[in-house]
Amino acid sequence: MAIPETQTAIVITGAGGPDVLQPQTVEVPVPGSGQVLIRVSAAGVNRHDVHQRSGGRHSDGTAIPGLEVCGTIAAVGAGVDRDRIAERVMALVQGGGYGQYVIASQHLVLPAPDTLSDIEAAGFPEAAFTTWWNFFHLMSLGKEGFALIHGGTSGVGHIALQAMSALGYRVIATAGTEAKVTAAKGFGAHAALSYRDAELAAKVMEATGGQGISALLDVSAGAHLDQDLKMMAPDGQIAHLSGGGGAELALPLRDIMAKRLRITGSLLRPLPLDRKARVAEDIRRDVLPLLGTRVRPTLAATFDFRDAASAHAEMERNDHIGKIMLTVDHD
Amino acid sequence: MAIPETQTAIVITGAGGPDVLQPQTVEVPVPGSGQVLIRVSAAGVNRHDVHQRSGGRHSDGTAIPGLEVCGTIAAVGAGVDRDRIAERVMALVQGGGYGQYVIASQHLVLPAPDTLSDIEAAGFPEAAFTTWWNFFHLMSLGKEGFALIHGGTSGVGHIALQAMSALGYRVIATAGTEAKVTAAKGFGAHAALSYRDAELAAKVMEATGGQGISALLDVSAGAHLDQDLKMMAPDGQIAHLSGGGGAELALPLRDIMAKRLRITGSLLRPLPLDRKARVAEDIRRDVLPLLGTRVRPTLAATFDFRDAASAHAEMERNDHIGKIMLTVDHD
Repeated sequence: MAIPETQTAIVITGAGGPDVLQPQTVEVPVPGSGQVLIRVSAAGVNRHDVHQRSGGRHSDGTAIPGLEVCGTIAAVGAGVDRDRIAERVMALVQGGGYGQYVIASQHLVLPAPDTLSDIEAAGFPEAAFTTWWNFFHLMSLGKEGFALIHGGTSGVGHIALQAMSALGYRVIATAGTEAKVTAAKGFGAHAALSYRDAELAAKVMEATGGQGISALLDVSAGAHLDQDLKMMAPDGQIAHLSGGGGAELALPLRDIMAKRLRITGSLLRPLPLDRKARVAEDIRRDVLPLLGTRVRPTLAATFDFRDAASAHAEMERNDHIGKIMLTVDHD
Repeated sequence: MAIPETQTAIVITGAGGPDVLQPQTVEVPVPGSGQVLIRVSAAGVNRHDVHQRSGGRHSDGTAIPGLEVCGTIAAVGAGVDRDRIAERVMALVQGGGYGQYVIASQHLVLPAPDTLSDIEAAGFPEAAFTTWWNFFHLMSLGKEGFALIHGGTSGVGHIALQAMSALGYRVIATAGTEAKVTAAKGFGAHAALSYRDAELAAKVMEATGGQGISALLDVSAGAHLDQDLKMMAPDGQIAHLSGGGGAELALPLRDIMAKRLRITGSLLRPLPLDRKARVAEDIRRDVLPLLGTRVRPTLAATFDFRDAASAHAEMERNDHIGKIMLTVDHD
């Protein structure tokens, strides 16, 4: 299939609300060494994209948002096996996912399993990389420890619960509504609790048999820190995924010292490629065999990519359970 | 030598200034399983003791402060070789150091080298355990990374500089006066700088060839956090030794996430014995061979143990370089 010179892609035309997302005609990029060009069929919408849009930030030189896609390999750069052309894949990308064609590093491309639809497959990479990087690379979680995720029904949370519980890890989830707490249990949470519960820490301690939490993934920028510090096990770690819009976390040093806790955080997008590649190897080995059986992205809502603005509005309503997705056509 | 039933020891008689430290006659303790009784000849004074006294906290059931001593083994508990009696040792202890006799775990007793006086040897354990636990166990420092110590002429700082530089680690020190900066250089600092310097971070970056700091030991409860965050290398760690009197650290999450920093901290005293024992093994292997040549505690001031109040007053003046010590007699 011939590759066109131009494509339709959704561009962040300025800082603002969802309506700054506009379809535009842009050039189809050319894959460099070690890269592939993917003809996109579906893309995931992530909280990161909403922040990028509202700040008008064009990270990495692209004004096209989108960190994960499913599609077929349309072309390969130097050093990539040409036999991979036409392979059905899902990939973590450095922006550009909300378009008909996107570049991906060959190391961050995974085979899309027959058991998942294109839309489901496109909803897997960002959650899987975020989960594996944070729990297993950054926090070195072992099976003897309990994990906790604030936001257990988020795009990341629901994949983490499914995959980690299938592999024998004990993960506790919190959520903000009764419906989400129930959903988190369904995703495999060892226990699911409301983060609005004033007795949250005590209930987590009970659910862990008094052991406490060894690795906590927080998308709330420390909104539940008082409870967190009470429920952490000695030597436990807290990893932050949200900078809270530049907020400062008021960290009581004595509590940190008393339990030897570690507070850390990271952004997936600027993580060096070699580390992402190691995460990809782990996902390939541990999670791909579970896809379609124990692990399947839940689709909260799907929009035509030209209507990405509605997808962002949906994410900002914060009512969804699972993934918000875009379908990408080539008409 | 017969062991008396009672001894003279310095007791924290209440929360307050140095004068709450009073000599009293107390029982000589009996070593339990795996423990030894040390007939003390000298003891170190640590910042911890000052906090313990001003708060009137009698941690671990003893009102006698003191975390490090030199002396001879006077008696052994079950499971300890009786041939060790009369051995000249230095030890990390769980309080009780400001007395004529103190209990120590056999795992935290090290041979006192002939090259050090009793007073020098008593000034070694707390600094060595703190340095090795924090840099090598908690922060996993390797030789490729740069370390930094805020307070390079403190009891901990000056031993860390001597021992780590002798072993090939590159340690940068900060201090608060010109005299202390000069002293820190003499202790082996790769670079020594004033922590009052507004260009501190830029100078540290220059001293590390742009690499930044991989492991930072902070006794200041984050007093220099703005500069610290600028000088840290990606994936760097900051370990806190001071809880700042219960203060909260205002941690900008975005900066933590941008570099994947880890903020941690610990107290040596409540650290489980098995971990302290592993630290002791490392010190025995790495540092004992350096004692008296490359590593020697600097004695800032020495007081009779009955005058521990003056030793505390001296520490609170904060002018000293190295260790403040007590001599313990048995008259």
